[in-house]
Order: sequence, then C-alpha cells, then structure tokens
Amino acid sequence: MEPRSANITVHQGHVTREDRERLLGQRGCVIWLTGLSGSGKSTIARALEARLIRDGRLAYVLDGDNVRNGLNADLSFSPAERAENIRRIGEVAALFADAGVIVLTAFISPYQADRWQAREVVGAERFVEVFVDAPLSVCEQRDPKGLYEKARAGEIDEFTGISAPYEQPEAPALVVPAATLDIDTCVEYIHKELEARGFLRAAKR
Amino acid sequence: MEPRSANITVHQGHVTREDRERLLGQRGCVIWLTGLSGSGKSTIARALEARLIRDGRLAYVLDGDNVRNGLNADLSFSPAERAENIRRIGEVAALFADAGVIVLTAFISPYQADRWQAREVVGAERFVEVFVDAPLSVCEQRDPKGLYEKARAGEIDEFTGISAPYEQPEAPALVVPAATLDIDTCVEYIHKELEARGFLRAAKR
Repeated sequence: MEPRSANITVHQGHVTREDRERLLGQRGCVIWLTGLSGSGKSTIARALEARLIRDGRLAYVLDGDNVRNGLNADLSFSPAERAENIRRIGEVAALFADAGVIVLTAFISPYQADRWQAREVVGAERFVEVFVDAPLSVCEQRDPKGLYEKARAGEIDEFTGISAPYEQPEAPALVVPAATLDIDTCVEYIHKELEARGFLRAAKR
Repeated sequence: MEPRSANITVHQGHVTREDRERLLGQRGCVIWLTGLSGSGKSTIARALEARLIRDGRLAYVLDGDNVRNGLNADLSFSPAERAENIRRIGEVAALFADAGVIVLTAFISPYQADRWQAREVVGAERFVEVFVDAPLSVCEQRDPKGLYEKARAGEIDEFTGISAPYEQPEAPALVVPAATLDIDTCVEYIHKELEARGFLRAAKR
C-alpha cells in the first residue's frame, strides 16, 4: 500500500497555541497561587474564574477538589509525592495554557524548587507566581476544614506550617495580602496583573 | 479574626461546565481514538482539530507528543504502566471536557479495561470511543516511525501488535476504516458523529 504521506502533509500545518488564542481572544497562561492551607487560594481562584467567565474569558481552576481526587489520587503528602503532585499539576497546567486557557492553580505547593519546575514547564513568560500571603496564625484561626486542629492533635502527618515546611516564594510576581484584603480586592489585584501582562487579549498576527 | 465566610459565600456560586459551554457554544467531550501504532490516530486527530478550530470550536489534541514527553514521561510500556498512562490521560481528558473543550485523544490504549475506566471518569454521555481500524499488515507496511522494524528486530519490547496485545473495542461508538478511507473522509465521519451528538452547540439554559 502507498503510504499516505500526501494526505498527511496537507494536515501537517498543525493548529498552534496562537490559533487557539486568536479564537478565544486571550492568551493561555498559568496563574499559580501558592500559600498555606486556609490562606484563601481556592476561594480567590474560584472568584477570579467567575469574574473572567462573566467577561467572556475561558478560565479554569485546578485545585485539590478536581486534582487530588482524580489525577493525583494515588499520591500521599510525603515530600517526594508532594513534588510529584506539583510536577503533574505543572504539566497539566502547561497543556491547558497550550490550549489557550487561563489556568488558575490553587495548591499549597510549599517547595520553591517544585514551583520553579512548574514555571519551567509552562514557560516563564506565561507563568505568574502569586503568593497568597496570610500568617499561619490567621490560617489556623480560620481553619475552614478543621485540618489545623487535626494536625495539632497529631491526626494528620506532614501538615504544611505545623509538621511540614512552607517555603515562601523568593521572588513572586505578585503578593496578595489575603489576611487584610477582602476577596474582591484580591481578585481585582490579580486581574489587573493579567491585564497588564496582555493575557486578556490575543497576540496580533 | 472574623472568618470571612460572608465573602466566601458570595463566591460559592462556582462556575459550572455549562457556563463554560455557553461561553464556547459547544459541549465539552472526549473523542477517544484507539488503534494500532501507524493506524492514523494522531493524523486524524490533528486534522479534525484543524477543522474544528477553523469553524470556531475549541478543540485540543492529547497525544504521545504532548503527554508521553511531559506528564507521563516517567512511565514505561509495561502493562501496569500502560494502565497508569491511560488512567492519567483519562483524568486529564475529563478536566479538559469539564473546561468545555472538545478533547481528541490519540493513544494506542490497547486494553479495554483501561478505556472503560477513562469513559467512567469522563462520563459515558460525553465520551466517544472511536476505533481507528487498520490491519496490522497495513500499519507495519506504513511504519511511519520505523517502530515495527525495531520491534521485529527485538529492539523494542512490549510493542503492541508484535509482542504485546491489542484488545479491539467491543462496542465502539464509531469504527473508522482508516486503511481504506483517506484522512479527510475519516475526519468527516467523526465530525458528523460530533454533530449528531449535539457537541457542536451549547446546551440550552
């Protein structure tokens, strides 16, 4: 049989990220929220997602709800498996950004090296590290899921801030003081950064 | 400090898949292509993607190029790691479908049980198993990457069709006779199925 290279060649003009970005009128990027449990990462991500969708932007949140229960359900919270957790999330975020989506990730992601690796995989020019900054005391007082209480009681091992380290971002693109600002203000703050970086319009041909 | 449940409640009206589908004017779904190496899965997926993007649909291909080199770079081709490969792809495809994207996956995915698991994770109503059907003899003659030659020479272990099994889909949604039809016809065939299932318009409110 004749190889069908003729047909194949016709279609080798693969769709590019730029094609999808023009279709969507935005640029694929990753807003990487990092911070302690209870700092407000998921809440901020969901609120920012709602704001973007209302404005006709395609945004998508990756957080514990949809990743830790699915793709990464096989991983524990040991340092090595936390690293693998973040490695996979970085890879998935990179695929979404390549699809043209504005990705909002909301994971503690306590290790700087893991966050750097994610930035590397996504591409530095479309990766925005946002430190959701709330003191441990505030997060522990909020304790929305009762996890700090369990960690203090020794019922949860390797809990960030209690029995496992949190490495603050050394040079985040943005610091959101989530203990003192309300959610809407936090969202506005990140949204302005998205605008300033040109992610809310497609690149010109 | 007062817990910020007031703020949080305001935003708990999470964006849903339906919101994103209305934004995009399409339904999130997974077109799961399965077939031997060289059967034409990736070529068909890329050509269908181009067709959809030209029509203003957001489609995205997951294949060996962007998954085996990234998210699943840690996995071998042993039966257990092939299963893990497909498990992760199913989970990622489910996330993309939840984001409203038309996902086209192009992996050999030789085991029926793994494909069933992917369908389960994605949701049967938005999962379309497509058997890209080309006889081994045709695939081996094409051998676009020279892999069959290496497998016959014993340089590649566990190569599907040669030294590892391929379980044909028992009840695929669609069979594409890829050895006898040209690429455009294969693409048209799957496109019609997408239309018939209502994936190319958003659900009504």
